[in-house]
Amino acid sequence: MVPKGFLFSTVEAAIKKPGRKDLALIVSQKEASIAGMFTTNKVKAAPVKLDMRKIRSGRAQAIVVNSGNANACTGGKGMQDSLEIVNRVAAGLKVKPSLVYICSTGVIGVPLPMGRIRQKISRLMLHIGRSAIEDVAKAIMTTDTFPKIVSKKVKIGRKTGTITGICKGAGMICPDMATMLCFIMTDIAVKQKMLDRTLRGAVSNSFNSVTVDGDRSTNDTVLIMANGMLGNQHITEKSASYHQFKKALSDVTHQLSRMVVKDGEGATKLIEIEVRGARNETDARKAAFAVANSKLVKTAIYGNDVNWGRIMAALGYAGIAIKEERTDIYFEKIAIVKKGTGAGREGKAREVMKRKEFAIVIDLNIGKASAKVLTCDLTEDYVKINASYRT
Amino acid sequence: MVPKGFLFSTVEAAIKKPGRKDLALIVSQKEASIAGMFTTNKVKAAPVKLDMRKIRSGRAQAIVVNSGNANACTGGKGMQDSLEIVNRVAAGLKVKPSLVYICSTGVIGVPLPMGRIRQKISRLMLHIGRSAIEDVAKAIMTTDTFPKIVSKKVKIGRKTGTITGICKGAGMICPDMATMLCFIMTDIAVKQKMLDRTLRGAVSNSFNSVTVDGDRSTNDTVLIMANGMLGNQHITEKSASYHQFKKALSDVTHQLSRMVVKDGEGATKLIEIEVRGARNETDARKAAFAVANSKLVKTAIYGNDVNWGRIMAALGYAGIAIKEERTDIYFEKIAIVKKGTGAGREGKAREVMKRKEFAIVIDLNIGKASAKVLTCDLTEDYVKINASYRT
Repeated sequence: MVPKGFLFSTVEAAIKKPGRKDLALIVSQKEASIAGMFTTNKVKAAPVKLDMRKIRSGRAQAIVVNSGNANACTGGKGMQDSLEIVNRVAAGLKVKPSLVYICSTGVIGVPLPMGRIRQKISRLMLHIGRSAIEDVAKAIMTTDTFPKIVSKKVKIGRKTGTITGICKGAGMICPDMATMLCFIMTDIAVKQKMLDRTLRGAVSNSFNSVTVDGDRSTNDTVLIMANGMLGNQHITEKSASYHQFKKALSDVTHQLSRMVVKDGEGATKLIEIEVRGARNETDARKAAFAVANSKLVKTAIYGNDVNWGRIMAALGYAGIAIKEERTDIYFEKIAIVKKGTGAGREGKAREVMKRKEFAIVIDLNIGKASAKVLTCDLTEDYVKINASYRT
Repeated sequence: MVPKGFLFSTVEAAIKKPGRKDLALIVSQKEASIAGMFTTNKVKAAPVKLDMRKIRSGRAQAIVVNSGNANACTGGKGMQDSLEIVNRVAAGLKVKPSLVYICSTGVIGVPLPMGRIRQKISRLMLHIGRSAIEDVAKAIMTTDTFPKIVSKKVKIGRKTGTITGICKGAGMICPDMATMLCFIMTDIAVKQKMLDRTLRGAVSNSFNSVTVDGDRSTNDTVLIMANGMLGNQHITEKSASYHQFKKALSDVTHQLSRMVVKDGEGATKLIEIEVRGARNETDARKAAFAVANSKLVKTAIYGNDVNWGRIMAALGYAGIAIKEERTDIYFEKIAIVKKGTGAGREGKAREVMKRKEFAIVIDLNIGKASAKVLTCDLTEDYVKINASYRT
C-alpha cells in the first residue's frame, strides 16, 4: 500500500559494515510539497543543517538516506560530503539539488566513507523502482529489530488517497539521544502550509510524547512529502476532507511511535504512563516523563516488581505541584496506591505487570489536566547493546 | 578514630530480612549541636518530616536509624511509628524526645514492623557502647557493597579534634532517587550557625556534585553532631582554626561522596566529568550533569568504547550555551575532540578508559566557568540489582 508516484531504491555501500543495504532513496515522480521537523539538539548533524535550510522552499522530489554513520560532528568536511551526495543524486535524477533532501543515522564523529558512497550512487540511480518500501524501511535501521511501516487509506471526495510512513527506532528513545528518522509519503494534494501545521500536531501527540523535548539526538528528522498524484483538489483547513486527512496522519505517526517504543533497545514491555488530575498540562507531562524516564521504575517494570514507591519518589522530584496524601496510582484498573499509601492489591498488580503492554495511571487529584507518555522497560540487553554499539 | 564522647549500638530487628544488624543508634554522651540537610523531594518520608521540625532547635543527643524500610508513603501510621521509636529511644536514654533524630532507608510504602522494632529497642539500649562505628556503617547499608567511613584529625590550638563520617550509598545515586544517608560526628565545639553554614558548603561540593538537585530520594539526609567534648573554645568564622575545620569537613564529605559513586549499583568505574570554559557555573553544572547522567555515555564507558559523539550529543541537549566548533574533549590528557570533531587519538583514549578511575574533561571554550561531577558506568548488574530489589 504505497501512495501513487513514489519509487524506491536501496544498495549496499558498506558504510559501517559490509553485507547489508545501508543507502536508500525515496523519489517522487512529480515534485512534491514537503514539511519537516528536526532535532532541537544544539549539536546538529550536517544533513540536518542542510535540510533545515532547504525546507524553507516547501518543495522536494527525493530523500537520500544512509544508516551506519550520522555524519555529525564531522566539521566542514561533513557538510561538503552531504552537499556532494545531494548534488550527485540531483544530477542522476535530473532535478535541482534544492529538491533533494538528505538524512543520516549511525555513529557520530566519523567521516562518511565517500569513496564507497560515490561508487554506489550510480547503482542507487539504476535501481530506482526495483526496491520496495520495505527495503528502505530495513536499510535505515540501526539497532532496530524490525522495520516500521504504517499505511492508511483516506477518502478524499470520491477518490482514495494513501498516507504511508516508515520510521527507524531510536535506541531507548524515551530519555536519551538515539536517532529517530521518519519519512511519510502521500499522494494526496495538500497545501504546504497546512501540511506543515498538520505534521506538527501529529508529531506532538506521537513522537514528542515518547521522547523528551530537548533530549533529542543530533539527527532526529521527520519529513512528509505530498506529491498530489491522487489528483484531488489541494486540501486546506476548509476542505471537507481536512479532518480525515488530519486523523489519518495522526494515526500513522501514533502507530509508528508505538512501534519505536516497543522496539526500544532491549525492551520487553510497552508501558503507557498516564497522569491525570494535574494542575496544568505542563505539570502532567513533566510528571509522566519523570516516571517514564526513571531508571528505577523501568527496571522494576522489567522485574515485575510492584515497587510503587519508586513511582511516588519520581513524582516527588518531578518539579510539579503534588499532594502526597491525594495521589492515587493504578496498574490498569487495579488500585495500587490510594491517598499516597499502599492499597494492598499487589498480587493482582503483579499479574498486570506480566503483560507485554499495560498502563500505569496516576491521579494527582489536584486539578483537571492530563498527559500520556509511552515508555519501555530497562533490561540487561539495553546495556549490552549500548556498551558495544560501535564494535 | 572516633571523636570523643560518641557511643554506638546495633541490633538485629529483621526489618526486611532476618540475619543482619538493621537497627542502629549513635549517642553523644553530652548534648550536641546539630545541623542537617534533607532531600528536596516533595514526597518525604515520615522520619525526614520529623527531623526537619526537630532541627530548628539545633540541639541533639542521639540518632536512631534503620535500614530495610524507608517508612515513606506510609501515611499517618508512618509518622506515628517514627514518633514512637523516638519516644522509646528518648525514654531509654533519659533525654528529651526533641534531642533524638530518626532516619530510615529501604523499601517505600511498607509499614515498619513495629512489633519486632519495639522488642529490639530495649536491647539496642543495653548494647550502647558495645558496637563500633563500623557496625553502624554496616547496619545502614542497603545495596552497598562496603561500609563507608572517613575520619580526619584537626588541630585546634594545642588540641587535636576528630571529624568522622559514615555514609550509606545510594544505588546509582547520580541520576536517580536512591537514598543517601550520612552521619558526621565531631568532638570539636562549633557554634550551631557556623556548623550549619559549613555543612552546606561541604555538601554542595561533594554529595550535591554526585546527585542532581531535585532528583533526590524520599529519605536523603545528612546530619552532623558536634558535642564539644574536645574542650576547645567554640569555633566561629573568626577563629584561627576555622579554615582547618572547614577543610577537614569538606575532605570528609568529599571522600564519602567518592565512595558512594564508586559503590554505585553494578558500577565498575569512577568517572569525573569536568566542564571548563562555560558561560557561567550554572551552565557548567548542567553540562556536566547531562553527560554524567546520559545512559548512552555511561554504557559506552562500561564497554571501553570511545564513543565521544554521545558526549557531544549530551552537551547539545543540556540546554546550555555551546559552540560545536569550539568544543574540545579530553580523556585525562588525551585530546579526543578538537574544535567539535574527532582528534583521532582513540587508541590512546581506549587505554585511559580501561582504568578504574579517569577524568573526562570538556572545554566549551566560550567562557571561564567550570564544574566537576562524579559519575559511574552503567552495567548489566545495575539492571539485575534493581529489577529484583524487593525480592
